[in-house]
Amino acid sequence: MSVRLLAFAASLRRDSTNRRLLGPAVELARAAGAQVEVAHYSEFEMPIFNADVQQASGFPAGAEALARRVREAEGMMIASPEYNYSLPGTLKNAIDWVSRMRPMPLRGKSALLISASDSAAGGIRGLWQLRIPLEGLGVVVYPDMFWLPHALSAFDGSGALKDPKLAERLGGVVRGYLEMAGKLSKPKA
Amino acid sequence: MSVRLLAFAASLRRDSTNRRLLGPAVELARAAGAQVEVAHYSEFEMPIFNADVQQASGFPAGAEALARRVREAEGMMIASPEYNYSLPGTLKNAIDWVSRMRPMPLRGKSALLISASDSAAGGIRGLWQLRIPLEGLGVVVYPDMFWLPHALSAFDGSGALKDPKLAERLGGVVRGYLEMAGKLSKPKA
Amino acid sequence: MSVRLLAFAASLRRDSTNRRLLGPAVELARAAGAQVEVAHYSEFEMPIFNADVQQASGFPAGAEALARRVREAEGMMIASPEYNYSLPGTLKNAIDWVSRMRPMPLRGKSALLISASDSAAGGIRGLWQLRIPLEGLGVVVYPDMFWLPHALSAFDGSGALKDPKLAERLGGVVRGYLEMAGKLSKPKA
Amino acid sequence: MSVRLLAFAASLRRDSTNRRLLGPAVELARAAGAQVEVAHYSEFEMPIFNADVQQASGFPAGAEALARRVREAEGMMIASPEYNYSLPGTLKNAIDWVSRMRPMPLRGKSALLISASDSAAGGIRGLWQLRIPLEGLGVVVYPDMFWLPHALSAFDGSGALKDPKLAERLGGVVRGYLEMAGKLSKPKA
Repeated sequence: MSVRLLAFAASLRRDSTNRRLLGPAVELARAAGAQVEVAHYSEFEMPIFNADVQQASGFPAGAEALARRVREAEGMMIASPEYNYSLPGTLKNAIDWVSRMRPMPLRGKSALLISASDSAAGGIRGLWQLRIPLEGLGVVVYPDMFWLPHALSAFDGSGALKDPKLAERLGGVVRGYLEMAGKLSKPKA
Repeated sequence: MSVRLLAFAASLRRDSTNRRLLGPAVELARAAGAQVEVAHYSEFEMPIFNADVQQASGFPAGAEALARRVREAEGMMIASPEYNYSLPGTLKNAIDWVSRMRPMPLRGKSALLISASDSAAGGIRGLWQLRIPLEGLGVVVYPDMFWLPHALSAFDGSGALKDPKLAERLGGVVRGYLEMAGKLSKPKA
Repeated sequence: MSVRLLAFAASLRRDSTNRRLLGPAVELARAAGAQVEVAHYSEFEMPIFNADVQQASGFPAGAEALARRVREAEGMMIASPEYNYSLPGTLKNAIDWVSRMRPMPLRGKSALLISASDSAAGGIRGLWQLRIPLEGLGVVVYPDMFWLPHALSAFDGSGALKDPKLAERLGGVVRGYLEMAGKLSKPKA
Repeated sequence: MSVRLLAFAASLRRDSTNRRLLGPAVELARAAGAQVEVAHYSEFEMPIFNADVQQASGFPAGAEALARRVREAEGMMIASPEYNYSLPGTLKNAIDWVSRMRPMPLRGKSALLISASDSAAGGIRGLWQLRIPLEGLGVVVYPDMFWLPHALSAFDGSGALKDPKLAERLGGVVRGYLEMAGKLSKPKA
């Protein structure tokens, strides 16, 4: 039985290298048998978190949309840019909203984190900071992560990774994650 | 000559314990000779960062307001809540906007980080994550930080800290920071 | 079928509160059906890591002992003190040695992290830093962690936790971890 | 008046790229007027920290040597390898020993952190973890850090950095740090 995944890139840019990286990652996951729903991050547009607003008016539609998508999935594949050596404010803001819902949708889910950046570090420092709120909220984040350096020149015309070694490493990380997610999604014996 | 500080609490809530903590902190700083401008965080309301929007329309008014306030100051005193073991998305979002301005207003400034939380850990885990983008952007963050646990019952009717030991520790941290900020703001010999 | 765990406290002290915390944690794990091997940290005494020494003389006996114990287990329960807001140098040193072995014994294992400290923060900041090298080496670290504040006065004469709420929370974390570890240790379907 | 610095590479290896990186860094600091004492890390050899041993027998000679060197300096230039995405166990162990001394030698000092690694990330993830115990102990760590990727092929026969851009960046970081350290070491006005 296949694992149900939600995949999205945490970027509102039209031409986001993280959204491009999601392409081959989703393809690899599907080839390995996963059932992947891809969401465009604009579905999750929401205002800045404000606890007073939440108490008065409830959750914004974008936060509800993200929560619904997360609830329908067993795991998440998140492509996230690194902003200022940490996770993007926009992604943290989305996590802050969703973390206030009860039952809290993220708890018990698993996640694979990947990133693309035009720098040599490929966004990996941001992913380490992204682990913290997710793990704090009960998400089993797969230990291995994938980061793509020099992302602006990393894709060929069809959207595939040019460097076969990087493509192979991405495949290994995706399949490793799916093996873990598959085991975790089984009912307790 | 006195140090010029910008002080704000990174919370939009009407009744924020972090804003309340700013009260005694600002008082202590002024008593030690600092010139403190207090900003209400609502002055810095801004949309979620989107690089496409920035390139098309420039910076939102709230980000410009924050940048102007930072430029006028030599240092910052930031009271920040902890959300999900990390800094609030709203504060990270503000940093993400300001980090794109040239010259970048944060570089070369100093900062003191304080937090209040009703938990036993007092928000200190969030402050450690807040250091990262600030230091990555060239802010000299004072090593010592102040965190206030059990914040809902920590203040008396006049807004002072009830526990004299905590008040003394806050005073020590504020004065230690001002000594560092004063040295750093002097022109190079 | 029961999960095989290695449990140890990362402290050489004779009267370590982390070793005391291991007592109720191991009891809870055994009550939940786990097969727990408890190691005394002194079995893993080893010199400071030096890559030249490793290349010339191989691995010290203490590192080999730790690796053997890890290989025999499916998961680990580590009680670790916090030293200077991070993991103890001694535990990082042990990880550094073991990380050089091939096949690397930690990869694919799972872990539960717990800590005790006489401070109000209970050592939790150290556990967050301990996650990093473990996850970097492929360990699935359980998202929830347990930290025991005010540890010097937390145990009764029989070594049990005095506070029933803390005991219950420890039980919840241990059973949650065992459920995850049990799923992960099953062969791929 | 020149700043007094202690410089060392946190590696016991005979042929350490971090020690090699210290060469040009020290040269740049001296050219900018600093008074730099270079220590070989083997002077600081010490056993694994054990609080019982400390209470019974005091501090080991290597820890005393490090503390004396730190006390004589106003700032530190530390070249540290990254081991397993974090600081080396050996350096954390040295910090753990020194942190127990009273008065604590590190408090009030400043530090510049640099790293070399043969990987593309150049050891920068380890430096971010090294900041934590140092800052927790009251060290003003300079915000900017320098990391040298692909270190095995980065030096020419004379020990200089081959890439003029990297050499220039190292110079900028060293001079920026010295400016900060100079201001901090001045007596309070």
